[in-house]
Amino acid sequence: MIDLKCQPLTAEAFAQFGDVIEVNGPPHKLINAGKCGRHHDLARLDFRGGRAGISLFNAEIRSLPYILDLMERHPDGSQAFIPMAHVPFLVTVAPDEGDRPGTPLAFMTRAGQGINLHRGIWHGVLTPLHLPGLFAVVDQIGDSANLDEVSLDPPFRVVP
Amino acid sequence: MIDLKCQPLTAEAFAQFGDVIEVNGPPHKLINAGKCGRHHDLARLDFRGGRAGISLFNAEIRSLPYILDLMERHPDGSQAFIPMAHVPFLVTVAPDEGDRPGTPLAFMTRAGQGINLHRGIWHGVLTPLHLPGLFAVVDQIGDSANLDEVSLDPPFRVVP
Repeated sequence: MIDLKCQPLTAEAFAQFGDVIEVNGPPHKLINAGKCGRHHDLARLDFRGGRAGISLFNAEIRSLPYILDLMERHPDGSQAFIPMAHVPFLVTVAPDEGDRPGTPLAFMTRAGQGINLHRGIWHGVLTPLHLPGLFAVVDQIGDSANLDEVSLDPPFRVVP
Repeated sequence: MIDLKCQPLTAEAFAQFGDVIEVNGPPHKLINAGKCGRHHDLARLDFRGGRAGISLFNAEIRSLPYILDLMERHPDGSQAFIPMAHVPFLVTVAPDEGDRPGTPLAFMTRAGQGINLHRGIWHGVLTPLHLPGLFAVVDQIGDSANLDEVSLDPPFRVVP
């Protein structure tokens, strides 16, 4: 089994997979009499049919080392994950290689970071590491199946 | 100055103003081999022109009693607030009375609740009560001003 070492999540390292939703530098605009900074329009929402919606995902907590044996992608829409707790979570993604995931990468967020996976990007399932495993998800609401799944054999082992 | 007593945020009490984004009952669907519950499509997104986007709001912490002296509304779009910490925050809203806010209501969320203000609903500015005052906001990205503001004279005092 091949080990995947977690790397810190940064906008640069993640750019080919999606957007990092984070406070990075000064706000685009101060609102509310200067008491609130607006960091504007941080995610490329991209839906093929359907429409954008907000759902909640309530996921079991995982731990490292984590066995990554399944990846999925959503051909019809981007998918944003906003953690509703100020804690890190694990993100696994992979480049596409002929309609299958290539070698995955593992990223560890820092508290306060969310992500937006671009449409069609291979990724592992939601892997919170700390309670509560509660995320707001902005993705495509529609009637299509919008899911490709691939088992990884052999699996990968994500390590700190 | 008139006191406004905070009431607990519930879907029923908030229905005329917007949606409560919360885990309420069993998930609509189990995903990820049963390890994640999807609570599906919990907010009525409603944009007049422009498009949906995800921004971050980073707001100063407030405390009770809180002086509510300003309300605003966004005629061109709904606005969802997703707290990125597992803590309560204060929500103030008001019914419309002839293009001005009527008597406001104050709601206290419980940890794990977000809100989606329907298009055009009068509301107070973002009022986190605990660090970090970090919220993901799903609202209209567009070129219109999309803001009406009204000062409240006399103001209201929000109390626990």
